[in-house]
Amino acid sequence: MSRTTYVLSTGTALPGPAIDNRSLCERIGAQPEWIDTFVGTRTRHFGINLATGEQTHSLADMATSAARQALSRADIDPSEIGFLVLGTATPDHLMPTSANLVADALGLEGIPTFQLQSGCSGAVAAFDVGSHLLTEERPLGLVIGADACYKHLPLDRESSSAMPPSELVNFVLFGDGAGAAVLALDDTDAQLGITALVNRFSGLGRDPGQQIEWFGLADRHLEQPGLNEDYKAIEHWVPLLSKDVLTDLLATAGLQREDLDYLLPPQLSGKMTQRVVKQMEIASNSREISVVADTGNNGNALPFLQIDALSREVQPGERAAVVAIESSKWIEGGMVLEGVA
Amino acid sequence: MSRTTYVLSTGTALPGPAIDNRSLCERIGAQPEWIDTFVGTRTRHFGINLATGEQTHSLADMATSAARQALSRADIDPSEIGFLVLGTATPDHLMPTSANLVADALGLEGIPTFQLQSGCSGAVAAFDVGSHLLTEERPLGLVIGADACYKHLPLDRESSSAMPPSELVNFVLFGDGAGAAVLALDDTDAQLGITALVNRFSGLGRDPGQQIEWFGLADRHLEQPGLNEDYKAIEHWVPLLSKDVLTDLLATAGLQREDLDYLLPPQLSGKMTQRVVKQMEIASNSREISVVADTGNNGNALPFLQIDALSREVQPGERAAVVAIESSKWIEGGMVLEGVA
Repeated sequence: MSRTTYVLSTGTALPGPAIDNRSLCERIGAQPEWIDTFVGTRTRHFGINLATGEQTHSLADMATSAARQALSRADIDPSEIGFLVLGTATPDHLMPTSANLVADALGLEGIPTFQLQSGCSGAVAAFDVGSHLLTEERPLGLVIGADACYKHLPLDRESSSAMPPSELVNFVLFGDGAGAAVLALDDTDAQLGITALVNRFSGLGRDPGQQIEWFGLADRHLEQPGLNEDYKAIEHWVPLLSKDVLTDLLATAGLQREDLDYLLPPQLSGKMTQRVVKQMEIASNSREISVVADTGNNGNALPFLQIDALSREVQPGERAAVVAIESSKWIEGGMVLEGVA
Repeated sequence: MSRTTYVLSTGTALPGPAIDNRSLCERIGAQPEWIDTFVGTRTRHFGINLATGEQTHSLADMATSAARQALSRADIDPSEIGFLVLGTATPDHLMPTSANLVADALGLEGIPTFQLQSGCSGAVAAFDVGSHLLTEERPLGLVIGADACYKHLPLDRESSSAMPPSELVNFVLFGDGAGAAVLALDDTDAQLGITALVNRFSGLGRDPGQQIEWFGLADRHLEQPGLNEDYKAIEHWVPLLSKDVLTDLLATAGLQREDLDYLLPPQLSGKMTQRVVKQMEIASNSREISVVADTGNNGNALPFLQIDALSREVQPGERAAVVAIESSKWIEGGMVLEGVA
């Protein structure tokens, strides 16, 4: 990254009430104690009413809310925005894109809008594309990350009680939500500067750690699984790749581990994050900013939620590293952020 | 667009044999004469065996073939490529992305890979993102467009004969395929230069002209429609938006209509393209390059197929305009291309 990109503001949106493990387990027939012990996630939010199954928040709804909050906090009128990039693994439809539904809801017109199909490192991918799209003629842009996992959440106990634990764990890990940031070419009124960014495919010759299917008209009645995670591979690789990203980010930014004031680590689940942080060998002065135990893994939204939390604490000159690993076919993502004086 | 981006080479891939209207109609129970009269598409290709329903080509397979052809034609080793951008409306899975499956198949590692969820103007979106990602440190990149509509093609006559014509027409319009291009920062060995590009959301307050659903574990057994097109809106808007894009492209490039040697118009169907071209008021010296009557509408691939055909004819200094309109939530896309001396 040869140029600093600036973050003027962030915004977040979590739908509905926080759902605790007891409420979730009543609905899908799992054991709350099992979640506490092995997953470590306490609450999550869903864009559906858990009792009725009715959709309360579309992905576009959540993304629009997060974007509105970010725009409002920066006191930016939507008409000043030069582009919109939305990262998600779970769009509302295949077409139209949720990016364009958000653009419509925000009253945007005549600007380029992009939707990245992306997993856990999608926020970094959106910042990457966004930083390249900033030009003198287009000095402000909006980047958004959102996921709505409810289309993969069978709410009837009959379906879920027939599932092996390897499938059931998926529904316990995930949650819904959105985050957004206003990016700027220059530092006027900026909160954070992005001084290094890593976003690279790292899956050559390696099997996918996660597979999520979508079904069309022709194959939706086939009884094939929709979600498959190789947790052994994820447990093995995510800490290693995280350490690798962090090392490169620090080298690019000319920093040492002890120069980091904050670490925003990968957020698969509460328990997994603990393990990843341990292996990243962070200096003792770095404060961890993690949110997954309270929000569940909401994929493309999570790094935005962490950066939002960071922005309320960071002081001018303080440095943070955010790391996100996409485990479906392995992408290493991360950024070094600095508080702007 | 403040800088010319160069195209070193293109490649295409169409799966299986060309399927004529008679063979298609035998399978899905429509009338060949009806297709000839109202659609104007003669043949298309599918990534499934039409007799057995078995998948023969995944989206990643087709995209990889097109990319290999483009790389080979430019005599570029995959290791020289600095990024990969794939546009599609119909990825193989939600996760992993087909972009990363292609990267793996090509032996790429350690570069940024992006998958744009996009419709008919996705090729222009991929060129747009790609042109912004080219830097001195990363002067070569790969952009790909591909679609595989077969997941929305119910092959049993029982399903299709129960469909109203408004749904059936969808299966008659579409086809599968892929196209690719090697982009470069400078003009060494270039075939084409991109001297103007328009890519903008143009759907504020306007209903979607196309809706394609995906189904997850929770909703795949619901009998909701999967595909909906508002052909009245498409017939009304696509010619108007096409003319609008062309006018702006020419103004940006400082050209008049009579300066265009080639027009690569939107490709919904053979008949529709005729209507669009008429309304674009192209000068009589411009030659039309259209492929849809032979390939069907393969979405993100189509402009690549047209540019591939152009590259075999264009002379140094000749100029072409490519226009593609995304009608789901309305994106205007287009480029001015010039033969490189």
